[in-house]
Amino acid sequence: MERSEGVADMARWEADSRGRLQRAALALYGERGFEQTTVAEIARRAGLTERTYFRHFADKREVLFWGSAALQELVVRAVADAPVGTAPIAAIVAALDAAAAFFQESREYSRRRQDVIDANPALQEREIIKLATLAAAVADALRGRGVGEPAASIAAEAGIGVFTVAFARWIAADNRHDFARCVHESLDALRAVLATG
Amino acid sequence: MERSEGVADMARWEADSRGRLQRAALALYGERGFEQTTVAEIARRAGLTERTYFRHFADKREVLFWGSAALQELVVRAVADAPVGTAPIAAIVAALDAAAAFFQESREYSRRRQDVIDANPALQEREIIKLATLAAAVADALRGRGVGEPAASIAAEAGIGVFTVAFARWIAADNRHDFARCVHESLDALRAVLATG
Repeated sequence: MERSEGVADMARWEADSRGRLQRAALALYGERGFEQTTVAEIARRAGLTERTYFRHFADKREVLFWGSAALQELVVRAVADAPVGTAPIAAIVAALDAAAAFFQESREYSRRRQDVIDANPALQEREIIKLATLAAAVADALRGRGVGEPAASIAAEAGIGVFTVAFARWIAADNRHDFARCVHESLDALRAVLATG
Repeated sequence: MERSEGVADMARWEADSRGRLQRAALALYGERGFEQTTVAEIARRAGLTERTYFRHFADKREVLFWGSAALQELVVRAVADAPVGTAPIAAIVAALDAAAAFFQESREYSRRRQDVIDANPALQEREIIKLATLAAAVADALRGRGVGEPAASIAAEAGIGVFTVAFARWIAADNRHDFARCVHESLDALRAVLATG
């Protein structure tokens, strides 16, 4: 009993360290710029050591991409777990709704993170690669459901396109809608675009 | 008269040097791998000097991406030049048809280039960035036509998604269709995916 509580305390403490490092990094990147900030400064701002930093993140960049693996797992699982007979686009919508729920509580963090990324070409590239990797994983999950080609690939590309556009809309300063609504507006816009011409 | 013929000769000679360097690079990358090939070896294989290589290409990687700027210019111009009143998706289809014509004669080169890229993660990243840059340029061209958001961004994302899927299909070993047909099949598949669910 005591021991498992100790483990739980440790897990909380670890998660808290990670969160503190993420917030400290984002604050410093916003204040000074990504290039001008060191890991030592991030650790100091968070009241932790560099060693603790490197236990959580491989480098200065990865603190901004920590959620990528969790997002991809969530999205792929939503596609894979859609009921048998679900149309590919419906499986993707389920995945986008799961992604929306994943982000919903962190709009302010996401907005500030995007400002940092927009200011740095190397971070923009990392973000683009992340999304392309996500698209490939979604196409793979669709093929795993028996969806053929080119349907699986084009559905995955469209899904990530919808996600990208919805995300930009969601974090825009003038937006008051939640992420799920932005996703559905973006999907509706895609359908409208394809319906004409 | 003589002088302009001299200039034309020079232009042909330059284009020929570039083509020889591109073919030599692709041959060596295919034989030895991208990492294991040097610029000196490429120049030697082409029967040219390293200095000539660097007059055409900034580095070992850019010989594989030389057409990117021309492709982007062509695609953006096709979107911009579509008649007033053309629906966004029709402007994009015009651009994809222009891209198809651009590639049509170089299937074998494109296929071997893709093999080199598929074997090297850094080249894959460069290719992904190229396509994301192209999508951003297309969205920009659509906004320049008065297309609003999110329609411009989502149409551009979908267009590049269609292009990517069509390109992979076109260069597949078992494909016998031309690029334009692959583009239209990919677009039809996107429409079919969105029509369900």
